[in-house]
Amino acid sequence: MFEAVELGHHVSKADYSAALETVRVDLINAQYELRTAPFSVLILLMGDDRQSCNEVINQLGEWMDGRYIHNHFFGEPTDEERERPRFWRYWRRLPRHGITGVFVGAWALSAIAERLRDELSADEFRRQCHHIYRFENLLASNGVLILKFWFHQSKKDFKNRLKAAKNNPKKAWRIDEADWQVYQQYDEFVRLSEEYIRITSSGATPWTLVETADFRYRNLLVAQTILSALQERLRSPQPALPAERPPTTYVTPSDRSILSQLDLGNHSPWGTYRETLEHYQAQLKRLTRKARRKGLSSVLVFEGWDAAGKGGVIRRLTQAMDAQDYRVIPIGAPIEEEKAHHYLWRFWQHIPGRGRIVIFDRSWYGRVLVERVEGFAHPWEWQWAYREINDFEEQLHEHGIVVLKFWLHIDPDEQLRRFKEREQTPYKKYKITEEDYRNRDRWQDYEMAVTDMVSRTSTHAARWHLVPATNKRRARIQVIKTLCHALKDRL
Amino acid sequence: MFEAVELGHHVSKADYSAALETVRVDLINAQYELRTAPFSVLILLMGDDRQSCNEVINQLGEWMDGRYIHNHFFGEPTDEERERPRFWRYWRRLPRHGITGVFVGAWALSAIAERLRDELSADEFRRQCHHIYRFENLLASNGVLILKFWFHQSKKDFKNRLKAAKNNPKKAWRIDEADWQVYQQYDEFVRLSEEYIRITSSGATPWTLVETADFRYRNLLVAQTILSALQERLRSPQPALPAERPPTTYVTPSDRSILSQLDLGNHSPWGTYRETLEHYQAQLKRLTRKARRKGLSSVLVFEGWDAAGKGGVIRRLTQAMDAQDYRVIPIGAPIEEEKAHHYLWRFWQHIPGRGRIVIFDRSWYGRVLVERVEGFAHPWEWQWAYREINDFEEQLHEHGIVVLKFWLHIDPDEQLRRFKEREQTPYKKYKITEEDYRNRDRWQDYEMAVTDMVSRTSTHAARWHLVPATNKRRARIQVIKTLCHALKDRL
Repeated sequence: MFEAVELGHHVSKADYSAALETVRVDLINAQYELRTAPFSVLILLMGDDRQSCNEVINQLGEWMDGRYIHNHFFGEPTDEERERPRFWRYWRRLPRHGITGVFVGAWALSAIAERLRDELSADEFRRQCHHIYRFENLLASNGVLILKFWFHQSKKDFKNRLKAAKNNPKKAWRIDEADWQVYQQYDEFVRLSEEYIRITSSGATPWTLVETADFRYRNLLVAQTILSALQERLRSPQPALPAERPPTTYVTPSDRSILSQLDLGNHSPWGTYRETLEHYQAQLKRLTRKARRKGLSSVLVFEGWDAAGKGGVIRRLTQAMDAQDYRVIPIGAPIEEEKAHHYLWRFWQHIPGRGRIVIFDRSWYGRVLVERVEGFAHPWEWQWAYREINDFEEQLHEHGIVVLKFWLHIDPDEQLRRFKEREQTPYKKYKITEEDYRNRDRWQDYEMAVTDMVSRTSTHAARWHLVPATNKRRARIQVIKTLCHALKDRL
Repeated sequence: MFEAVELGHHVSKADYSAALETVRVDLINAQYELRTAPFSVLILLMGDDRQSCNEVINQLGEWMDGRYIHNHFFGEPTDEERERPRFWRYWRRLPRHGITGVFVGAWALSAIAERLRDELSADEFRRQCHHIYRFENLLASNGVLILKFWFHQSKKDFKNRLKAAKNNPKKAWRIDEADWQVYQQYDEFVRLSEEYIRITSSGATPWTLVETADFRYRNLLVAQTILSALQERLRSPQPALPAERPPTTYVTPSDRSILSQLDLGNHSPWGTYRETLEHYQAQLKRLTRKARRKGLSSVLVFEGWDAAGKGGVIRRLTQAMDAQDYRVIPIGAPIEEEKAHHYLWRFWQHIPGRGRIVIFDRSWYGRVLVERVEGFAHPWEWQWAYREINDFEEQLHEHGIVVLKFWLHIDPDEQLRRFKEREQTPYKKYKITEEDYRNRDRWQDYEMAVTDMVSRTSTHAARWHLVPATNKRRARIQVIKTLCHALKDRL
C-alpha cells in the first residue's frame, strides 16, 4: 500500500511559494466561512513520520486562525479517562460546529501501539479497527468533515534522517527516543498500519497517504486537500450520507404494538407499599455502597409517556442513594452548545466514573421518539440511530457499566386524568403545557415509535424493561426491585 | 457560635404544607426567571449533619426544575485535578449564567477534613480559609449569587440519631461509617467549623446556619432563604460590590510611562541570528523534554501592541517543542459561553497538566487593557482585577507552575509601517482591520494601562518581561533566552 506513495514527489521552492500565496488566502477565508456553518472539521494526523505530524501542526497554526483550530494530543489516558469507555476521551474533545479540531494519533495510534505492545491480540486489534470505522462514520454521517492524513516515509529515508541527525549535533535535537523506537519496529508498524488503513477507510472518511520526503510537497498536499474538501462542503453543507445505508425500515404491524400487550390492570403492589419500598431501599443502599467500593458503575435510562411518573420513581431510588454517588440528568431540548455537536455528545459528557450512578430522565432515545414523530430528524437519521445507540450502549456494557432502561407505561385516559390533576396543584402547574396536550394527538405515532425502539434496541447489553405505571406504587416497586437484582447479579 | 442555633426550632406539619404551597410556586418561577438573567447561583451545602445535605439536595431536586440545577460532589481529587492548582476542580464545575450549581462540601469540607487529618497545620488551615474567602468574594463580585448553608445538629441529637438507627434495623441503612467518623471527631470538627465560618463570612457571601433537628424547619429555612435572595437579586441583577473596595487607584504620571524607558534602538541581535536561535531552540527542546519527565509545567503569557510580532515569537518557541507538550491558546473576544462566566473562567479551563506548557497569545490582561480602555469593564472591575489576577497567578506559582509574562513593545511609527506591510501581503491582510487603526488613536490610554498593569502585577510569582520588539529577531532571541533560563533555574 505504502509503496504506491514512495514516489519521490517534489515541489520546487518557487512553485511552493506561488501555490501557497493563493492557498493561504483561500484557507483562511474558508475557515472564516466555516465559523458560521452547521458542521465541524476533524483532522486526524497519524503515521510513521512523527516529525511531520509536528511540523504540519505548526504549519496549520501559521496558515489558519488559531482561535478556531484546536489541537489535541492523546498520551496515556488520565484516570478520569480510564474510568470510562475508550472513546470517552475523544468525545469530550470533539470540536463544535464552526471549529476545526486536529487530533494527533488519537484512536489510530492507540490501537496500533497497543497491538505493538501485545496488549491487543490480532483479533482484538481488528475488532478495534471496526469499532473505529463505525465511530468515524457515525461522526461523518452527523456532518463532521473528517480528513485523515497518514504521513509516510520509506525505511531508507527514515534511516538516513536518523543518521543525519546523529552525525550533526545541531540537528540532533529534532529527533528523540520515540523516533528510534518507531524505526526499530518500522516493519511491524507499517504492516499494522496497512491493516488499519484498509479497515478504517470509507467513502466518507478516506485516508490521504502523504509521502513526507519533501516537506513542500507534504505541506502543499495537506493544505490543498483540506482546502478543497472544506470548500466543497461549504458549498453544500448537508451531512454526508453514512457509508452504509441503514437496514431496511422495520415495519410494525399497525394494529398491534408491544405496549398493547402490557397488563395495565390496577393491581395492588406486592405486600404493603411502604414496607416493601423500605425493604428495597435498604437493599439498594447496601448495594450502591458496595458498588462504590467495588467500582461498579451504572447508567439508568427512564423513558415513558408524559405524566407516567418518571420523577416519582427516580426520587424513590435516589432517596436510597448517597447523594455523592448518583447524578440525575434531566434531558430537555438541546441547548445551543449541544446542537453544535453530534446528538450523542451531550450524553457522553455524563458517563459516570468508577462506582457512580447516572440516571437519565429521558435520554438519547429522544432521537427515535420525539425527533422521529415530530420530524426533527430525517428518516435516515432516526433509522440510523438504532444502530448508533446500540453501539453506544454496547460500549458502556463492554466497559463493565450496568445499563438499565425503563419505559413507564400508562394509557391515554390515565394520562388525561393526571394532566387535570396536575393543573389543580399550584407547584405542578408549570409541568403541563399546551405541548403536552398536542403530543396526545400523536399517541398512535408515538406508540409505533416506542414499539420500534423496544424491538430494535433491546439488546443483550441493555434490555428494555416495560413497566406498567397506572399504579404508581407498583411501578416504583418494580423498578427498584429490577435495579437491586441487576446490581446483585454483578456484585 | 453554634449554640445560637440550637434552639429547638420547630414547624408544624400544617404550617409546613401551607408555607410550601406558596414557596414552591415562587421558587420555580424565580428559577425560570433566572434562566435568562445575567448571573448564576451557587449554593454551598456543608455541615456536621451529612444526612441533611443529602436530604436537602433531594428536596431541591423535587422543588425545582432539575434541568437548571446541577449538583456537584467532590470526593478525592482525580489525577487531572491533582495536576492543577487546588481550585481548578471547582472552576471547571462553576455554573454558567442562568444555572444554579449546588456544591456539596467542596472547598469547605476539603479544608476542614485536611486539617482533621493533620495534612494542614493550624496556620496553613487559616491561610486556606483566607484563600477561600477571597475566592468566594471574587465570584460574588462578578455577580455570582452565593448562598451558603451550614447544617448543624447538637452533639446530643447526633448521638440519639445514631443510636436510634443502630437499634432499628429498618432505619440503619440511612447511616454509614462516615457519619460515625464525624461523630467521633465532633468536638474538633465543630471547633474548626467555627473558625472556618468566621473567616469565610462576608457581607456578599454570608453563611446561613441551619438547625436540623426538625426537617420541616430546615427545609423551609433553606427554601425561603434561597427564594428571597434570588428574588431580590432578580429585581436588581447588578453584581454586588466586593466586600472590600479596591485599593486606591494607582495614578500614573502621564508624562512618563514605564514603556518610554525601554531602549527601542534597532540593535543587531546577539551573534548571528540563525545560529543563536538554533542554539537556544536546541536548549529549549532539551529543557522541555526534561520538564515533561520531571512534571514541571509552564504558563507563558504574551501581550503587546498589535503587530508587535507575538505570533512570530511564539512560533520560534513551538518549533522547538514537541507538539504534544504545548498548546497555544489565542485569546479573542469571549464567546457566549465564556461571557456567561467569570472572566477568569476561560483561562482556568486551559491550565496545563503535569509537564505541559500553555502559551496564551493575549490573556486575562485584556481585563486591564482593552476592557479598561474601551470601557467594557467598570473602573472598579478593572481596578479590582489587579488583585484577582495576582491571586490567580500566585495560585499557579504555588502549585509549582513556571509563569512568564512578556510584553512586546514597538512604537507607533513602527506599528504603522507594519500595518502597511501586512496590507501588501495577501494572506496577512485579514489580520488588519479598521479596529486596528482605531486602536492607534488611543495609544496614550493604552500606554497608561500598560504601565499600571506592569507596576501592579509584576510580582515575585510572575514578573513581567518587557521586550523591545522593533528588531523582531532580537525580540525572539530575548524571549527564548528568558524561557530557557527560567526553566533551567527550576530543573
